[in-house]
Amino acid sequence: MSDTLFARACRREPVERTPIWIMRQAGRYLPEYRALRAKADFLTCCHTPELACEITLQPVQRLDVDAAILFSDILVPLPAMGVEVTFNPGPHLARPVRSAGDVAALRVPDAREATPFVLEAIRLVRCALPQTVPLIGFAGAPFTMATYLVEGGGSKHFDAIKGLLFSDPPTAHALLARCGETVASLLAEQVRAGAQAAMLFDTWAGLLGPADYRAFALPYVRRVFDRVTEVAAELGLDVPRIYYAGNAGGWLPACRDTGATVVGLDWRMDLEPARAQLGPELAVQGNLDPAVLLGTPALIRQRARAVLDQAGPIGHVFNLGHGILPQTPPDHARVLVDAVRECSSRRVA
Amino acid sequence: MSDTLFARACRREPVERTPIWIMRQAGRYLPEYRALRAKADFLTCCHTPELACEITLQPVQRLDVDAAILFSDILVPLPAMGVEVTFNPGPHLARPVRSAGDVAALRVPDAREATPFVLEAIRLVRCALPQTVPLIGFAGAPFTMATYLVEGGGSKHFDAIKGLLFSDPPTAHALLARCGETVASLLAEQVRAGAQAAMLFDTWAGLLGPADYRAFALPYVRRVFDRVTEVAAELGLDVPRIYYAGNAGGWLPACRDTGATVVGLDWRMDLEPARAQLGPELAVQGNLDPAVLLGTPALIRQRARAVLDQAGPIGHVFNLGHGILPQTPPDHARVLVDAVRECSSRRVA
Repeated sequence: MSDTLFARACRREPVERTPIWIMRQAGRYLPEYRALRAKADFLTCCHTPELACEITLQPVQRLDVDAAILFSDILVPLPAMGVEVTFNPGPHLARPVRSAGDVAALRVPDAREATPFVLEAIRLVRCALPQTVPLIGFAGAPFTMATYLVEGGGSKHFDAIKGLLFSDPPTAHALLARCGETVASLLAEQVRAGAQAAMLFDTWAGLLGPADYRAFALPYVRRVFDRVTEVAAELGLDVPRIYYAGNAGGWLPACRDTGATVVGLDWRMDLEPARAQLGPELAVQGNLDPAVLLGTPALIRQRARAVLDQAGPIGHVFNLGHGILPQTPPDHARVLVDAVRECSSRRVA
Repeated sequence: MSDTLFARACRREPVERTPIWIMRQAGRYLPEYRALRAKADFLTCCHTPELACEITLQPVQRLDVDAAILFSDILVPLPAMGVEVTFNPGPHLARPVRSAGDVAALRVPDAREATPFVLEAIRLVRCALPQTVPLIGFAGAPFTMATYLVEGGGSKHFDAIKGLLFSDPPTAHALLARCGETVASLLAEQVRAGAQAAMLFDTWAGLLGPADYRAFALPYVRRVFDRVTEVAAELGLDVPRIYYAGNAGGWLPACRDTGATVVGLDWRMDLEPARAQLGPELAVQGNLDPAVLLGTPALIRQRARAVLDQAGPIGHVFNLGHGILPQTPPDHARVLVDAVRECSSRRVA
């Protein structure tokens, strides 16, 4: 692993070209995924290691991306925490977590008992992947997981979670601590099972202003990554820690304190000023607007080049700024992969 | 008008205290508003100058804010453009604008014919307001209005508008130009009718990265504010031009080119670094997280002080970073107004 293109880019070492993978690369835009989903629902796919493995490999085969990411969902630990969740297609919780009593009732499961299917899927994928393609394990960041638990699904103003933060901070912190412990176990065990990078998705942290980000999101991310670091050291492995910071323009410098080695960004800001704020220690991942893949191949190539120019050749993993849209033509995803490969090779040569 | 506290803060002149008003201050959190709405639906309230006037005055009476903003909606020009819209409570368009043909069919109405009720409401409010409280007229910024027209209502990924921008830029620009002309007429006529400040809400511009913001949003904002500037000059008035830039962390410096004199910001970034990016010419408006008003009075006072400290005493109009939440206790809004008044007076003295 430590020699893959992806790993070297994460470590900010010189690379012959910029590696690329695509958030939600295993998903609804792929006809082979939809064919499989016609036979098994979303949760069954997450819970069945053979299916999760097959779906994880689909985009590697079709797109020739430089990393695989496990097919799973950030909410898979919820049932073991004592919370039922359904998908249709977005997540829905029949009984959101709202009170101090609800929080106290949450269990903090060990991932080996709670989500053994995730760990088994990782073992299967590792056996199936070529040596040159590392496998990224992931989990939801504690604040984002807490947001789902409190809102109970999608939301317009996210007033339930924010109402909790502002009207009852001790309960909010108790919830975040439970989410943090659950996620730490899940991500650390994925590394033990063979994941070669550990990613946290903090999709909703952008709901917070800078002070609240530092109070309610950052410390719990730090704890999860500390646990990953410990497990990696125990195993004698170098495991990149990737933090996807959604809508992070207001508190980017705080990402330096998360313990991440790579920060994933959405398309809302240019990578050049972002890197200036993140400092020289961190690699970046991103950040093409996923909707660009709805445009022409010429537009895709032009915009891919613009992202590469912004990012520079060192410490950059190309990605979209958010998950690939379901209506994206798969050929356009391939155009992007080829464009990044060609354009970044030429630059280095 | 040019001597009100609000106007002086907008012009970055010294003020004895920081003025405050609250986005959506006339709205659902007020029992007197709900009482009125029990008798008349939302659009009837927008379309009936006497009702719009009464609603506009409600928060001025209850909260003693330093500015009034007309009760209306950014989508009121749609029927005159040829697009039907209903509210329940969010807007819904039965037939969204998607194709070049749809765009070509849009009319560009003169506000005097399309929305005379808005102009009449402004005249009524001006008669009723004390001289010390200026009236802000407003409209949706062209990109935000185009987003509603194309999405047809709320959206998760806003892939319809972004698909249009990226797959058919000429049609997107044709749509934005039509929205821009419609909005320019609406805002300029509000100034002619007596609005003492002109505000554009660009709620959705934060969907765009910096290059796309400059291509698709900025030029049309500029045209609207140019029209407002012309009309104000014609009338011999100084009319602040306020630009609410939602989720603008990635392209804040571009706001300098909008023609605004005041930039309204959400809570996602601190005002001190925001001002550094906006430069010394612009005043700022904002930016307390609306959910803070769900917390205790002590928290509200503490957070109000933090915003005032970030903003400094010159060129700041206090506001929330987004509309006040419907479940906010009205007393908490009053706590905020009093806290800003007290805390900023003490500072200046």
